[in-house]
Amino acid sequence: MYQLDLANLSLEQFLAEYWQKKPLLIKGGFQNFQDPLSADELAGLALDEQVDARLIQRSEGSWQLDEGPFEHFEGYGEQDWTLLVQAVDHWHPAAATLLEPFRFIPNWRIDDLMVSFSAPGGGVGPHLDQYDVFIIQGMGKRRWRVGMPNASLEQFCPHPRLLQVSDFQACIDAVMEPGDILYIPPGCPHDGIALEPSLNYSVGFRAPAQKDLFGGLADYLLDFQIDGERFSDPGRLASESPGAIQGRDLAEIRQLMQAMLSDDDLISHWFGSYISQAKRELDLQEPEPHYQAEEIAEYLEEGSVLGRLGGLRCCYQQLDANADVQLFINGDRFPLPATELATARLLTDQPQLDEAACRHLVQTPERLGFITQLINQGYWYFIE
Amino acid sequence: MYQLDLANLSLEQFLAEYWQKKPLLIKGGFQNFQDPLSADELAGLALDEQVDARLIQRSEGSWQLDEGPFEHFEGYGEQDWTLLVQAVDHWHPAAATLLEPFRFIPNWRIDDLMVSFSAPGGGVGPHLDQYDVFIIQGMGKRRWRVGMPNASLEQFCPHPRLLQVSDFQACIDAVMEPGDILYIPPGCPHDGIALEPSLNYSVGFRAPAQKDLFGGLADYLLDFQIDGERFSDPGRLASESPGAIQGRDLAEIRQLMQAMLSDDDLISHWFGSYISQAKRELDLQEPEPHYQAEEIAEYLEEGSVLGRLGGLRCCYQQLDANADVQLFINGDRFPLPATELATARLLTDQPQLDEAACRHLVQTPERLGFITQLINQGYWYFIE
Ligand SMILES: O=C(O)CCC(=O)C(=O)O
Ligand SMILES: O=C(O)CCC(=O)C(=O)O
Ligand SMILES: [Co+2]
Ligand SMILES: [Co+2]
Repeated sequence: MYQLDLANLSLEQFLAEYWQKKPLLIKGGFQNFQDPLSADELAGLALDEQVDARLIQRSEGSWQLDEGPFEHFEGYGEQDWTLLVQAVDHWHPAAATLLEPFRFIPNWRIDDLMVSFSAPGGGVGPHLDQYDVFIIQGMGKRRWRVGMPNASLEQFCPHPRLLQVSDFQACIDAVMEPGDILYIPPGCPHDGIALEPSLNYSVGFRAPAQKDLFGGLADYLLDFQIDGERFSDPGRLASESPGAIQGRDLAEIRQLMQAMLSDDDLISHWFGSYISQAKRELDLQEPEPHYQAEEIAEYLEEGSVLGRLGGLRCCYQQLDANADVQLFINGDRFPLPATELATARLLTDQPQLDEAACRHLVQTPERLGFITQLINQGYWYFIE
Repeated sequence: MYQLDLANLSLEQFLAEYWQKKPLLIKGGFQNFQDPLSADELAGLALDEQVDARLIQRSEGSWQLDEGPFEHFEGYGEQDWTLLVQAVDHWHPAAATLLEPFRFIPNWRIDDLMVSFSAPGGGVGPHLDQYDVFIIQGMGKRRWRVGMPNASLEQFCPHPRLLQVSDFQACIDAVMEPGDILYIPPGCPHDGIALEPSLNYSVGFRAPAQKDLFGGLADYLLDFQIDGERFSDPGRLASESPGAIQGRDLAEIRQLMQAMLSDDDLISHWFGSYISQAKRELDLQEPEPHYQAEEIAEYLEEGSVLGRLGGLRCCYQQLDANADVQLFINGDRFPLPATELATARLLTDQPQLDEAACRHLVQTPERLGFITQLINQGYWYFIE
């Protein structure tokens, strides 16, 4: 398991001084770093049509972008290109463990692990992202420059699917070596150019915009056929100007919407379900035939351990200590009694369930039934 | 023009005592009532594929529903059926004038004019609606029963597309004659059975539900690519339970949504645009070729008058007396300076523009350009 080493910085200091504020180079953030996958394995993933991959190439100042799935990588030459594969945590359990050291930020804020391989000279060009990212240097060396957000930077498209940013002033300019970690907050321009064949691992975050939230809530109301209240106006006065939308009416419309946002249960249930939905393909493999609860109990009592499907989004919410626990898995909500908080935590806090955790899950018929269902959906699977 | 006669009731009394509260039979609400269309004309509309029409028939206790467009009405017999045509105001200017006496309720709350023809014995069966309605009796006589909202009433479907309600206690039970008007608030069970071949005109209202509002706002943000702010958490503390959606985070999410609802301009612009969108086909006829502004000026100075396209939704909003006027026509927003309030009122308050109104519209180049655009879109047209 990878262990994050912030050197002379405490986690609290990192959060207070850098998180969402300014970039930071963490030299030796992972001591004795071992790549969880090889460049060849990454190339192999990029052949899979379920996997999102792009190859970005620079030649004589112009940019080219090819989209996966790829058939081979011949013809790209020895330099100036980068292969980027999204959501590698969905497909490669060892690579997925790179997300774990960053779980001091809660699950729902974490997006995915992107992995890139760059030939010498390779990079995607200077650009901005809207989300925080930790970029881990694997094999090779890459020079990274990072600047502070700057409203005067101009964005442009050197290729229809590539958004870059004009030249920026760097506050970090360093050659990264295996195990070094670069933290980049949203809006900071950055540019990485490989000096040697390099692997880079991007632990990416997500932060819904207001538009996403309203879109998500509207979809939820539609899916669950929650109409809510209708506008009503028993106190209406005769209108002098039929064309006018009166301030009073608009205030009532707004009030009606605000009332829905004030509904604790609705907002909690919607948000958990919304934020736990997978955005990209999962490597779902339903066991065939399904397991019987008795079989599961037997395996788990014998010491089998369970892994959570890579990229599966899991979180829970408890409004107060006596309230039901709302557990959310891949967009579905499972209400659990307050006494089952430990169960919700095991399933969401940990990507693997060790023997003790598995024993907990077979202790009551309800838990056993539930984990049986989750295993039969392909959400958890036997590791040993 | 139809003139509403509330007899011994003032408009203020009607609004205070009945509107959205309890049903009311207004005997002789229109004195010397003349039908704006004939049963034959209505049948003709039901042949048009752009027009929404249904025919509901009862035979030996079972219900049948046929949907338009119809080819003929042979075979329906002499009794026990009703032909209903939606949004007749979109297709029949004379019928559309029946909406005008009800404009003491503002435009944005008015939906459309539905017209029904019933053979003796015809009706759609006892049912509830979610919206207010004024039902005007035209030719013939029909017995109407209306009850108060009652949670113990059961709804059922005697036909997949027909929702009826169990037997109810009537607080109004009357034979309606030409010019009588029945006001029915949302949720009041009602049942009309024709005693003679009858025309009924339903002035229908609309009242968006919370779901509609959130759906409408989400669509607007998408259409206008308004992302809004992203969630941010520069004050984050290390999470002890990565799976938890902390109360503080959920509160921030809610706060982010509330902030958008608190944006006066956004909400006003969205709501006007949302509520002025046509839900059904309009009888749009763009003039071909388009008019030049000079031609329009000439016609209007010579005394031509303009009519507004039937069913076109028009409204305006002014947040305060010095603010710009936001004019909304068929989903589009036109910001006008505060000094143009009169222009917005002419266009939205009145379904026809008389000579004085037309002179106002050619007085400045801006107004002339605007009315030229509206005429060339088919939204207003020359009546004479
Ligand atoms: O690995 C790369 O070349 C791109 C990394 C990056 O820019 C990011 O993760 O934001
Ligand atoms: O005209 C009819 O038969 C139906 C009228 C009605 O129920 C309504 O407008 O709500
Ligand atoms: Co980036
Ligand atoms: Co009705």
